Amino acid sequence: MKIAQVAPLIESVPPKAYGGTERIVSYLTEALVAQGHEVTLFASGDSITTADLVPIIDRSLRTHPRRPDPVLWHTLLLDEVFSRADEFDVIHFHVDTLHYPLARHCATPHVTTLHGRLDLPDLDLLHRRFQDLPLVSISDRQRLPLPDAHWCGTVHHGLPLDLYTFQPQPQDYFAFVGRVSPEKRLDRAIEIALACDTPLKIGAKVDDNDRPYFDQYLRPLLEHPLIEFVGEIDQSQKNDFIGNARALLFPIDWPEPFGLVMIEAFACGTPVIAYPCGSVPEVMQDGTTGRIVHDQAEAIAAARDVGRIDRAACRRVFEQRFTATTMAQRYLQVYQMLARPLLAHAARSRGLTSTARIERYAGPVALR
Amino acid sequence: MKIAQVAPLIESVPPKAYGGTERIVSYLTEALVAQGHEVTLFASGDSITTADLVPIIDRSLRTHPRRPDPVLWHTLLLDEVFSRADEFDVIHFHVDTLHYPLARHCATPHVTTLHGRLDLPDLDLLHRRFQDLPLVSISDRQRLPLPDAHWCGTVHHGLPLDLYTFQPQPQDYFAFVGRVSPEKRLDRAIEIALACDTPLKIGAKVDDNDRPYFDQYLRPLLEHPLIEFVGEIDQSQKNDFIGNARALLFPIDWPEPFGLVMIEAFACGTPVIAYPCGSVPEVMQDGTTGRIVHDQAEAIAAARDVGRIDRAACRRVFEQRFTATTMAQRYLQVYQMLARPLLAHAARSRGLTSTARIERYAGPVALR
Repeated sequence: MKIAQVAPLIESVPPKAYGGTERIVSYLTEALVAQGHEVTLFASGDSITTADLVPIIDRSLRTHPRRPDPVLWHTLLLDEVFSRADEFDVIHFHVDTLHYPLARHCATPHVTTLHGRLDLPDLDLLHRRFQDLPLVSISDRQRLPLPDAHWCGTVHHGLPLDLYTFQPQPQDYFAFVGRVSPEKRLDRAIEIALACDTPLKIGAKVDDNDRPYFDQYLRPLLEHPLIEFVGEIDQSQKNDFIGNARALLFPIDWPEPFGLVMIEAFACGTPVIAYPCGSVPEVMQDGTTGRIVHDQAEAIAAARDVGRIDRAACRRVFEQRFTATTMAQRYLQVYQMLARPLLAHAARSRGLTSTARIERYAGPVALR
Repeated sequence: MKIAQVAPLIESVPPKAYGGTERIVSYLTEALVAQGHEVTLFASGDSITTADLVPIIDRSLRTHPRRPDPVLWHTLLLDEVFSRADEFDVIHFHVDTLHYPLARHCATPHVTTLHGRLDLPDLDLLHRRFQDLPLVSISDRQRLPLPDAHWCGTVHHGLPLDLYTFQPQPQDYFAFVGRVSPEKRLDRAIEIALACDTPLKIGAKVDDNDRPYFDQYLRPLLEHPLIEFVGEIDQSQKNDFIGNARALLFPIDWPEPFGLVMIEAFACGTPVIAYPCGSVPEVMQDGTTGRIVHDQAEAIAAARDVGRIDRAACRRVFEQRFTATTMAQRYLQVYQMLARPLLAHAARSRGLTSTARIERYAGPVALR
């Protein structure tokens, strides 16, 4: 298929550091190219891809020295995409909702993956208005706040097969990876580690808006000799940081839309101790990829016993369910479902009516 | 004509306090209704108008307790406008550039007034891409940074005839009205007033981002007994505040796109002492509505001599050039120029070809 991927311009594809959406766009794009599709990637000019790159701006916005206006540049992005829409069989948007009024008038099949949390003010209202726009969620749980939106499927995130290596023999520590915002509950992770008398390594970014919470509530907890605050870790450090841990602690307290770090842990063979918020019950297999726990007593017991979890089984779950190849295949099902009426039409135009199978798009279909 | 006015949702139309764009949209809308046109105003629900109001959100965004996402709400605004586009002869946008990709695909004639400064990063690039979109500038000077944009005319702002009353006998003070940002040069105004041994009343808003400059550089200057810092003044106070002043000091140092306060002063009969930046040479008539000065020595001399300026002549210039009625008539010329091919087409459809005058839109036309 001829597929357009439309990435945010905030980070490059893949991102230099943080940038979950741009990472997934990169993994998906490369997997689609590897499967033989003609992929065009609309992204910042410092992106690196085997697809056909359409560079909208010389480099990504977050670190651009000129501090360009994001709305202006996404306006230019959308105009470029829609001016070339008829070159593609399907257009896949990853840019939130800015394109909705334009997409509504677009003859080319298109789909939008919503990467963020959806329980924000007014998103329900927006999606009642745009009920005609096909959407993909990254977990079933993510879509609950928007029951009236036009969901076409859930496609879980995936990682390249060889991005992380299986580590059968961990060292003696737990890992925490992610932001330090209150809903990530680093405080719970510290309590679990101390109760197990096990070191905790924290690979975490402190965003400006989390700084007051970090300084007031977390900093005093970091002084214990078992607690090591490493700071933000980049992609090259993650393999060892997560893979060498006995467990990844994920004691969240918010509707996590997907939680990429869980499948990063699986890929390393590292089990996860997680609270059942958001996507966790869909991503985790309790007893196989770690433990789903409901309070700190359960969490501490699970962390003490985590050696019983088979690390090879974690890796197998990753390989079966969470590779970029699997993700790309699921998105292809969505693309084909959406593009089918038009492909059928194109077949008719070429005089292939008698042999081409003509089907109508029959509305949203669950893909999982 | 059937005219759509599309206002920003930041403030109501008219705004409760600050909000230059929304004020002008209000004056224009009411003047068009008064001239017998069918006007539809897309704006926040707390707007007050004699036009047909399409309330996009219950109340304006700036003071909304829920702190709604501006991009989301302007997305909804644009979708509503474009879904009803065929109801109008012309659509007039006042919402910066967010609508450009959609407007390009809109069959209804449309025009955009750019209300802000245009020498910002990347605006030239945006407008080279959108050369097909008809634009109106609010001064000739304003458009200079965007020579490649599709300018259809300059329409100066206007005020309702009776908004301000002529004040023939001023009191003994100068007035300064506006933001206290560095480019407005309140420091120059203070120097002029002190050199003339004349009180200065300052009706000024301190935006958060101007606070450090205000505290460090301006606050010490305000301690002189001749200087009175009144703070932000609302519409109801302006008539007396400006009208009772011997002169309005406008010693700016930036490319002012229009400078509404100058014509507010004219409407009161108050002369203006202004530096020739941005729109000033177009709006001011040197020697009639005050003085254009090039340095502080000239400014001080002009302020000392300002009693020689005929206040009735200032008011006459306002009545001749800067009423809302005049502004509306100029915009109607723009609308008619843009809508003409379609009106002709509509006439043809009704079988009136033989009598209807059919013309083609012949490209940009200077309106002043």
